[in-house]
Amino acid sequence: MKLYDLEPSGNCYKVRLFAGLANIALERVPVDFLGGAHKKPPLIEMNPLGQLPVLQDGNLALRDAQAILVYLAGTYGGLAWWPGEPQGQGEVMQWLSFAANEVQHGPNAARLVDKFGAALDKPTTLAKAAAALKVLDQHLASHPWLALGRPTIAECAVYPYVVLAPEGGVDLAPYPHVLGWIERVKALPGYVAQPV
Amino acid sequence: MKLYDLEPSGNCYKVRLFAGLANIALERVPVDFLGGAHKKPPLIEMNPLGQLPVLQDGNLALRDAQAILVYLAGTYGGLAWWPGEPQGQGEVMQWLSFAANEVQHGPNAARLVDKFGAALDKPTTLAKAAAALKVLDQHLASHPWLALGRPTIAECAVYPYVVLAPEGGVDLAPYPHVLGWIERVKALPGYVAQPV
Repeated sequence: MKLYDLEPSGNCYKVRLFAGLANIALERVPVDFLGGAHKKPPLIEMNPLGQLPVLQDGNLALRDAQAILVYLAGTYGGLAWWPGEPQGQGEVMQWLSFAANEVQHGPNAARLVDKFGAALDKPTTLAKAAAALKVLDQHLASHPWLALGRPTIAECAVYPYVVLAPEGGVDLAPYPHVLGWIERVKALPGYVAQPV
Repeated sequence: MKLYDLEPSGNCYKVRLFAGLANIALERVPVDFLGGAHKKPPLIEMNPLGQLPVLQDGNLALRDAQAILVYLAGTYGGLAWWPGEPQGQGEVMQWLSFAANEVQHGPNAARLVDKFGAALDKPTTLAKAAAALKVLDQHLASHPWLALGRPTIAECAVYPYVVLAPEGGVDLAPYPHVLGWIERVKALPGYVAQPV
Protein backbone atom coordinates (compact mmCIF):
# COMPACT_ATOMS: atom_id res chain seq x y z
CA MET A 1 0.00 0.00 0.00
CA LYS A 2 1.53 3.30 -1.17
CA LEU A 3 1.15 6.78 0.23
CA TYR A 4 2.14 9.43 -2.30
CA ASP A 5 3.60 11.82 0.19
CA LEU A 6 4.97 15.32 0.57
CA GLU A 7 6.88 15.68 3.82
CA PRO A 8 5.93 19.31 4.72
CA SER A 9 2.24 18.71 3.94
CA GLY A 10 -0.06 18.60 6.95
CA ASN A 11 -2.63 16.76 4.85
CA CYS A 12 -0.08 14.00 4.23
CA TYR A 13 0.83 14.10 7.92
CA LYS A 14 -2.82 13.26 8.77
CA VAL A 15 -2.33 9.89 7.08
CA ARG A 16 1.17 9.30 8.48
CA LEU A 17 -0.10 10.10 11.98
CA PHE A 18 -2.97 7.64 11.71
CA ALA A 19 -0.72 4.94 10.25
CA GLY A 20 1.54 5.38 13.28
CA LEU A 21 -1.27 5.33 15.85
CA ALA A 22 -3.03 2.32 14.28
CA ASN A 23 0.18 0.50 13.37
CA ILE A 24 -0.57 0.31 9.65
CA ALA A 25 2.35 -0.31 7.28
CA LEU A 26 2.54 2.26 4.49
CA GLU A 27 5.13 2.58 1.77
CA ARG A 28 5.83 6.29 1.53
CA VAL A 29 6.50 7.47 -2.03
CA PRO A 30 7.97 11.00 -1.98
CA VAL A 31 6.48 13.17 -4.72
CA ASP A 32 8.53 15.75 -6.63
CA PHE A 33 6.18 18.60 -5.76
CA LEU A 34 8.44 21.43 -6.92
CA GLY A 35 8.75 19.60 -10.25
CA GLY A 36 4.96 19.41 -10.47
CA ALA A 37 4.73 15.61 -10.39
CA HIS A 38 1.32 15.88 -8.69
CA LYS A 39 -0.03 17.72 -11.76
CA LYS A 40 1.18 15.09 -14.25
CA PRO A 41 0.41 11.40 -14.95
CA PRO A 42 0.20 9.07 -13.18
CA LEU A 43 -0.73 11.19 -10.11
CA ILE A 44 -3.14 13.57 -11.87
CA GLU A 45 -5.07 10.51 -13.06
CA MET A 46 -5.27 9.20 -9.48
CA ASN A 47 -6.30 12.64 -8.19
CA PRO A 48 -7.63 15.12 -10.76
CA LEU A 49 -7.60 17.81 -8.05
CA GLY A 50 -3.80 17.73 -8.29
CA GLN A 51 -3.36 17.51 -4.53
CA LEU A 52 -1.59 15.24 -2.08
CA PRO A 53 -1.90 12.83 -0.34
CA VAL A 54 -2.99 10.03 -2.64
CA LEU A 55 -3.31 6.48 -1.35
CA GLN A 56 -2.95 3.44 -3.60
CA ASP A 57 -4.07 0.08 -2.25
CA GLY A 58 -4.19 -2.54 -4.98
CA ASN A 59 -6.50 -1.21 -7.69
CA LEU A 60 -7.94 1.47 -5.43
CA ALA A 61 -6.67 5.05 -5.66
CA LEU A 62 -8.05 7.48 -3.08
CA ARG A 63 -7.57 11.23 -2.75
CA ASP A 64 -8.38 13.52 0.19
CA ALA A 65 -6.87 12.90 3.61
CA GLN A 66 -10.27 12.56 5.28
CA ALA A 67 -11.45 9.94 2.77
CA ILE A 68 -8.16 8.07 3.19
CA LEU A 69 -8.60 8.07 6.98
CA VAL A 70 -12.11 6.60 6.66
CA TYR A 71 -10.84 3.91 4.29
CA LEU A 72 -7.75 3.00 6.30
CA ALA A 73 -9.62 2.92 9.60
CA GLY A 74 -12.43 0.82 8.19
CA THR A 75 -10.09 -1.60 6.46
CA TYR A 76 -7.07 -1.87 8.77
CA GLY A 77 -7.68 0.26 11.86
CA GLY A 78 -10.58 -1.28 13.69
CA LEU A 79 -13.78 0.18 15.09
CA ALA A 80 -12.08 2.19 17.84
CA TRP A 81 -10.98 4.77 15.27
CA TRP A 82 -14.07 4.85 13.04
CA PRO A 83 -17.15 3.19 14.45
CA GLY A 84 -19.53 1.04 12.44
CA GLU A 85 -22.73 2.64 13.71
CA PRO A 86 -24.16 5.81 12.19
CA GLN A 87 -24.42 7.99 15.29
CA GLY A 88 -20.73 7.55 16.00
CA GLN A 89 -19.88 8.07 12.34
CA GLY A 90 -21.92 11.28 12.30
CA GLU A 91 -20.14 12.61 15.38
CA VAL A 92 -16.71 11.88 13.90
CA MET A 93 -17.78 13.24 10.48
CA GLN A 94 -18.54 16.66 11.99
CA TRP A 95 -14.83 16.96 12.73
CA LEU A 96 -13.72 15.57 9.36
CA SER A 97 -15.69 18.38 7.70
CA PHE A 98 -14.26 20.85 10.24
CA ALA A 99 -10.80 19.70 9.11
CA ALA A 100 -11.67 19.94 5.39
CA ASN A 101 -13.21 23.41 5.73
CA GLU A 102 -12.55 25.51 8.86
CA VAL A 103 -9.05 24.17 9.62
CA GLN A 104 -8.05 24.04 5.95
CA HIS A 105 -8.99 27.69 5.38
CA GLY A 106 -7.80 28.92 8.80
CA PRO A 107 -4.53 27.67 10.31
CA ASN A 108 -3.54 25.71 7.19
CA ALA A 109 -4.03 28.72 4.91
CA ALA A 110 -2.11 31.00 7.30
CA ARG A 111 0.79 28.56 7.24
CA LEU A 112 0.67 28.37 3.43
CA VAL A 113 1.22 32.14 3.31
CA ASP A 114 4.10 32.27 5.81
CA LYS A 115 5.90 29.05 4.94
CA PHE A 116 5.25 28.69 1.21
CA GLY A 117 4.40 32.21 0.03
CA ALA A 118 0.84 31.38 -1.03
CA ALA A 119 -1.05 34.39 -2.47
CA LEU A 120 -3.83 34.41 0.10
CA ASP A 121 -5.16 37.25 2.25
CA LYS A 122 -3.27 36.71 5.51
CA PRO A 123 -5.67 38.67 7.78
CA THR A 124 -8.59 36.58 6.48
CA THR A 125 -6.70 33.35 7.20
CA LEU A 126 -5.87 34.57 10.72
CA ALA A 127 -9.50 35.52 11.40
CA LYS A 128 -10.65 32.08 10.23
CA ALA A 129 -7.94 30.41 12.32
CA ALA A 130 -9.06 32.31 15.43
CA ALA A 131 -12.71 31.40 14.84
CA ALA A 132 -11.87 27.72 14.36
CA LEU A 133 -9.54 27.56 17.38
CA LYS A 134 -12.13 29.23 19.60
CA VAL A 135 -14.71 26.56 18.72
CA LEU A 136 -12.12 23.83 19.20
CA ASP A 137 -10.98 25.20 22.57
CA GLN A 138 -14.55 25.51 23.80
CA HIS A 139 -15.29 21.90 22.81
CA LEU A 140 -12.12 20.56 24.40
CA ALA A 141 -12.89 22.42 27.63
CA SER A 142 -15.44 19.71 28.41
CA HIS A 143 -14.29 16.81 26.22
CA PRO A 144 -10.91 15.04 26.39
CA TRP A 145 -11.21 14.01 22.73
CA LEU A 146 -13.10 15.39 19.74
CA ALA A 147 -15.69 12.62 19.52
CA LEU A 148 -16.90 9.47 21.29
CA GLY A 149 -14.78 10.07 24.40
CA ARG A 150 -11.74 8.46 22.84
CA PRO A 151 -9.17 9.13 20.12
CA THR A 152 -10.64 8.63 16.64
CA ILE A 153 -9.72 9.60 13.08
CA ALA A 154 -11.17 13.02 14.00
CA GLU A 155 -7.92 13.61 15.92
CA CYS A 156 -5.84 12.61 12.89
CA ALA A 157 -7.79 15.01 10.65
CA VAL A 158 -7.82 18.05 12.94
CA TYR A 159 -4.55 17.81 14.90
CA PRO A 160 -1.92 18.30 12.15
CA TYR A 161 -2.76 21.86 11.07
CA VAL A 162 -3.53 22.84 14.67
CA VAL A 163 -0.15 21.75 16.01
CA LEU A 164 1.48 23.38 12.96
CA ALA A 165 -0.49 26.65 13.39
CA PRO A 166 2.47 28.58 14.92
CA GLU A 167 4.25 28.13 11.55
CA GLY A 168 1.54 30.44 10.18
CA GLY A 169 1.96 33.02 12.92
CA VAL A 170 -0.95 31.67 14.97
CA ASP A 171 -0.22 31.70 18.71
CA LEU A 172 -1.88 28.79 20.51
CA ALA A 173 -1.37 30.26 24.02
CA PRO A 174 -4.93 31.70 24.16
CA TYR A 175 -6.32 28.19 23.73
CA PRO A 176 -5.32 26.23 26.86
CA HIS A 177 -7.69 23.33 26.20
CA VAL A 178 -6.27 22.93 22.72
CA LEU A 179 -2.77 22.84 24.26
CA GLY A 180 -3.86 20.15 26.71
CA TRP A 181 -5.35 18.08 23.88
CA ILE A 182 -2.13 18.43 21.86
CA GLU A 183 -0.25 16.91 24.82
CA ARG A 184 -2.75 14.04 25.04
CA VAL A 185 -2.34 13.31 21.31
CA LYS A 186 1.45 13.39 21.64
CA ALA A 187 1.24 10.83 24.45
CA LEU A 188 -0.72 8.28 22.38
CA PRO A 189 1.14 5.02 21.65
CA GLY A 190 2.53 5.06 18.12
CA TYR A 191 2.44 8.86 17.84
CA VAL A 192 4.64 10.23 15.08
CA ALA A 193 5.62 13.88 14.86
CA GLN A 194 5.62 16.01 11.73
CA PRO A 195 9.27 16.58 10.70
CA VAL A 196 10.39 20.17 11.25
CA MET B 1 -36.63 14.35 14.14
CA LYS B 2 -36.09 18.06 13.55
CA LEU B 3 -34.13 19.84 10.84
CA TYR B 4 -33.29 23.42 11.83
CA ASP B 5 -33.63 24.86 8.39
CA LEU B 6 -33.04 27.99 6.36
CA GLU B 7 -34.88 27.83 3.06
CA PRO B 8 -32.34 29.64 0.80
CA SER B 9 -29.41 27.64 2.25
CA GLY B 10 -27.92 25.08 -0.10
CA ASN B 11 -26.41 23.30 2.89
CA CYS B 12 -29.90 22.84 4.32
CA TYR B 13 -31.10 21.77 0.87
CA LYS B 14 -28.54 18.93 0.93
CA VAL B 15 -30.47 17.40 3.83
CA ARG B 16 -33.93 18.15 2.39
CA LEU B 17 -32.88 16.58 -0.91
CA PHE B 18 -31.67 13.40 0.75
CA ALA B 19 -34.78 13.18 2.94
CA GLY B 20 -36.87 13.36 -0.25
CA LEU B 21 -34.84 10.77 -2.15
CA ALA B 22 -34.70 8.32 0.76
CA ASN B 23 -38.24 9.02 1.95
CA ILE B 24 -37.21 10.10 5.46
CA ALA B 25 -39.71 12.16 7.47
CA LEU B 26 -38.19 15.38 8.83
CA GLU B 27 -39.88 18.12 10.78
CA ARG B 28 -38.52 21.33 9.29
CA VAL B 29 -38.03 24.08 11.87
CA PRO B 30 -37.48 27.43 10.11
CA VAL B 31 -34.73 29.47 11.82
CA ASP B 32 -34.92 33.25 12.13
CA PHE B 33 -31.57 33.76 10.42
CA LEU B 34 -31.88 37.54 9.95
CA GLY B 35 -32.67 37.79 13.68
CA GLY B 36 -29.51 35.79 14.44
CA ALA B 37 -31.29 32.82 16.05
CA HIS B 38 -28.46 30.52 14.85
CA LYS B 39 -25.99 32.53 16.96
CA LYS B 40 -28.05 32.27 20.18
CA PRO B 41 -29.19 29.45 22.48
CA PRO B 42 -30.44 26.85 21.94
CA LEU B 43 -28.96 26.62 18.42
CA ILE B 44 -25.47 27.91 19.26
CA GLU B 45 -25.27 25.15 21.88
CA MET B 46 -26.21 22.54 19.28
CA ASN B 47 -23.75 24.00 16.78
CA PRO B 48 -21.02 26.26 18.17
CA LEU B 49 -20.00 27.11 14.59
CA GLY B 50 -23.24 29.09 14.35
CA GLN B 51 -24.20 27.52 11.02
CA LEU B 52 -27.17 25.70 9.59
CA PRO B 53 -28.36 23.02 9.13
CA VAL B 54 -28.59 21.36 12.53
CA LEU B 55 -30.31 18.01 12.96
CA GLN B 56 -31.89 16.93 16.22
CA ASP B 57 -32.84 13.28 16.62
CA GLY B 58 -33.74 12.44 20.21
CA ASN B 59 -30.74 13.42 22.33
CA LEU B 60 -28.43 13.69 19.36
CA ALA B 61 -27.65 17.09 17.85
CA LEU B 62 -25.55 17.06 14.69
CA ARG B 63 -24.08 19.93 12.70
CA ASP B 64 -22.60 19.96 9.19
CA ALA B 65 -24.62 18.79 6.21
CA GLN B 66 -22.13 16.07 5.29
CA ALA B 67 -22.17 14.60 8.82
CA ILE B 68 -25.96 14.73 8.84
CA LEU B 69 -26.07 12.87 5.52
CA VAL B 70 -23.82 10.12 6.89
CA TYR B 71 -25.96 9.79 10.00
CA LEU B 72 -29.31 9.85 8.21
CA ALA B 73 -28.19 7.40 5.53
CA GLY B 74 -26.71 5.01 8.06
CA THR B 75 -29.74 5.16 10.35
CA TYR B 76 -32.70 5.51 8.00
CA GLY B 77 -31.49 5.45 4.41
CA GLY B 78 -30.06 2.03 3.78
CA LEU B 79 -26.78 0.85 2.33
CA ALA B 80 -27.55 2.04 -1.21
CA TRP B 81 -26.82 5.63 -0.17
CA TRP B 82 -23.88 5.05 2.20
CA PRO B 83 -22.28 1.63 2.04
CA GLY B 84 -21.12 -0.32 5.05
CA GLU B 85 -17.75 -1.34 3.64
CA PRO B 86 -14.72 0.93 3.82
CA GLN B 87 -13.76 1.08 0.14
CA GLY B 88 -17.22 2.35 -0.78
CA GLN B 89 -17.20 4.75 2.16
CA GLY B 90 -13.81 6.08 1.08
CA GLU B 91 -15.02 6.66 -2.50
CA VAL B 92 -18.12 8.53 -1.29
CA MET B 93 -16.08 10.46 1.31
CA GLN B 94 -13.86 11.94 -1.42
CA TRP B 95 -16.94 13.76 -2.69
CA LEU B 96 -18.18 14.77 0.78
CA SER B 97 -14.85 16.55 1.31
CA PHE B 98 -15.13 18.01 -2.22
CA ALA B 99 -18.52 19.43 -1.15
CA ALA B 100 -17.17 20.77 2.18
CA ASN B 101 -14.12 22.40 0.57
CA GLU B 102 -13.99 22.94 -3.22
CA VAL B 103 -17.74 23.42 -3.76
CA GLN B 104 -18.18 25.43 -0.55
CA HIS B 105 -15.44 27.89 -1.50
CA GLY B 106 -16.25 27.93 -5.24
CA PRO B 107 -19.87 28.05 -6.46
CA ASN B 108 -21.32 28.45 -2.96
CA ALA B 109 -19.06 31.41 -2.16
CA ALA B 110 -19.82 33.07 -5.53
CA ARG B 111 -23.54 32.78 -4.80
CA LEU B 112 -23.04 34.21 -1.30
CA VAL B 113 -21.55 37.33 -2.89
CA ASP B 114 -24.25 37.83 -5.54
CA LYS B 115 -27.33 36.76 -3.60
CA PHE B 116 -26.48 37.75 -0.02
CA GLY B 117 -23.81 40.45 -0.39
CA ALA B 118 -21.06 38.46 1.35
CA ALA B 119 -17.74 40.33 1.57
CA LEU B 120 -15.69 37.80 -0.37
CA ASP B 121 -13.38 38.29 -3.34
CA LYS B 122 -15.66 37.45 -6.25
CA PRO B 123 -12.92 36.67 -8.83
CA THR B 124 -11.36 34.19 -6.39
CA THR B 125 -14.70 32.46 -5.88
CA LEU B 126 -15.23 32.28 -9.66
CA ALA B 127 -11.78 30.81 -10.21
CA LYS B 128 -12.40 28.18 -7.54
CA ALA B 129 -15.83 27.44 -9.02
CA ALA B 130 -14.31 26.92 -12.48
CA ALA B 131 -11.60 24.62 -11.09
CA ALA B 132 -14.16 22.53 -9.17
CA LEU B 133 -16.59 22.32 -12.09
CA LYS B 134 -13.82 21.27 -14.46
CA VAL B 135 -12.90 18.33 -12.20
CA LEU B 136 -16.56 17.44 -11.77
CA ASP B 137 -17.25 17.58 -15.51
CA GLN B 138 -14.22 15.46 -16.28
CA HIS B 139 -15.31 12.83 -13.75
CA LEU B 140 -18.90 12.78 -15.01
CA ALA B 141 -17.71 12.36 -18.60
CA SER B 142 -17.03 8.72 -17.80
CA HIS B 143 -19.22 8.10 -14.73
CA PRO B 144 -23.01 8.47 -14.54
CA TRP B 145 -22.82 9.12 -10.78
CA LEU B 146 -20.13 10.45 -8.46
CA ALA B 147 -19.32 7.16 -6.74
CA LEU B 148 -20.15 3.45 -6.81
CA GLY B 149 -22.03 3.65 -10.12
CA ARG B 150 -25.25 4.69 -8.41
CA PRO B 151 -26.74 7.68 -6.60
CA THR B 152 -25.30 8.05 -3.09
CA ILE B 153 -25.13 10.79 -0.47
CA ALA B 154 -22.25 12.17 -2.57
CA GLU B 155 -24.94 13.46 -4.97
CA CYS B 156 -26.85 15.10 -2.08
CA ALA B 157 -23.67 16.84 -0.87
CA VAL B 158 -22.37 18.08 -4.24
CA TYR B 159 -25.52 18.74 -6.30
CA PRO B 160 -27.15 21.66 -4.38
CA TYR B 161 -24.47 24.32 -4.86
CA VAL B 162 -23.76 23.09 -8.39
CA VAL B 163 -27.37 23.45 -9.56
CA LEU B 164 -27.51 26.82 -7.74
CA ALA B 165 -24.23 28.03 -9.28
CA PRO B 166 -25.93 30.32 -11.86
CA GLU B 167 -27.23 32.37 -8.90
CA GLY B 168 -23.58 33.27 -8.31
CA GLY B 169 -22.97 34.20 -11.94
CA VAL B 170 -21.44 30.82 -12.82
CA ASP B 171 -22.54 29.60 -16.25
CA LEU B 172 -22.85 25.81 -16.40
CA ALA B 173 -22.99 25.64 -20.21
CA PRO B 174 -19.24 24.83 -20.53
CA TYR B 175 -19.81 21.70 -18.43
CA PRO B 176 -22.06 19.41 -20.52
CA HIS B 177 -21.45 16.32 -18.39
CA VAL B 178 -22.43 18.26 -15.27
CA LEU B 179 -25.63 19.34 -17.05
CA GLY B 180 -26.42 15.72 -17.94
CA TRP B 181 -25.85 14.65 -14.34
CA ILE B 182 -28.15 17.42 -13.09
CA GLU B 183 -30.89 16.00 -15.30
CA ARG B 184 -30.28 12.50 -13.94
CA VAL B 185 -30.52 13.76 -10.35
CA LYS B 186 -33.74 15.64 -11.15
CA ALA B 187 -35.24 12.42 -12.55
CA LEU B 188 -34.63 10.42 -9.35
CA PRO B 189 -37.78 9.27 -7.51
CA GLY B 190 -38.50 11.53 -4.56
CA TYR B 191 -36.44 14.43 -5.94
CA VAL B 192 -37.23 17.77 -4.34
CA ALA B 193 -36.15 21.08 -5.85
CA GLN B 194 -34.66 24.01 -3.99
CA PRO B 195 -37.32 26.76 -3.76
CA VAL B 196 -36.50 29.77 -5.96
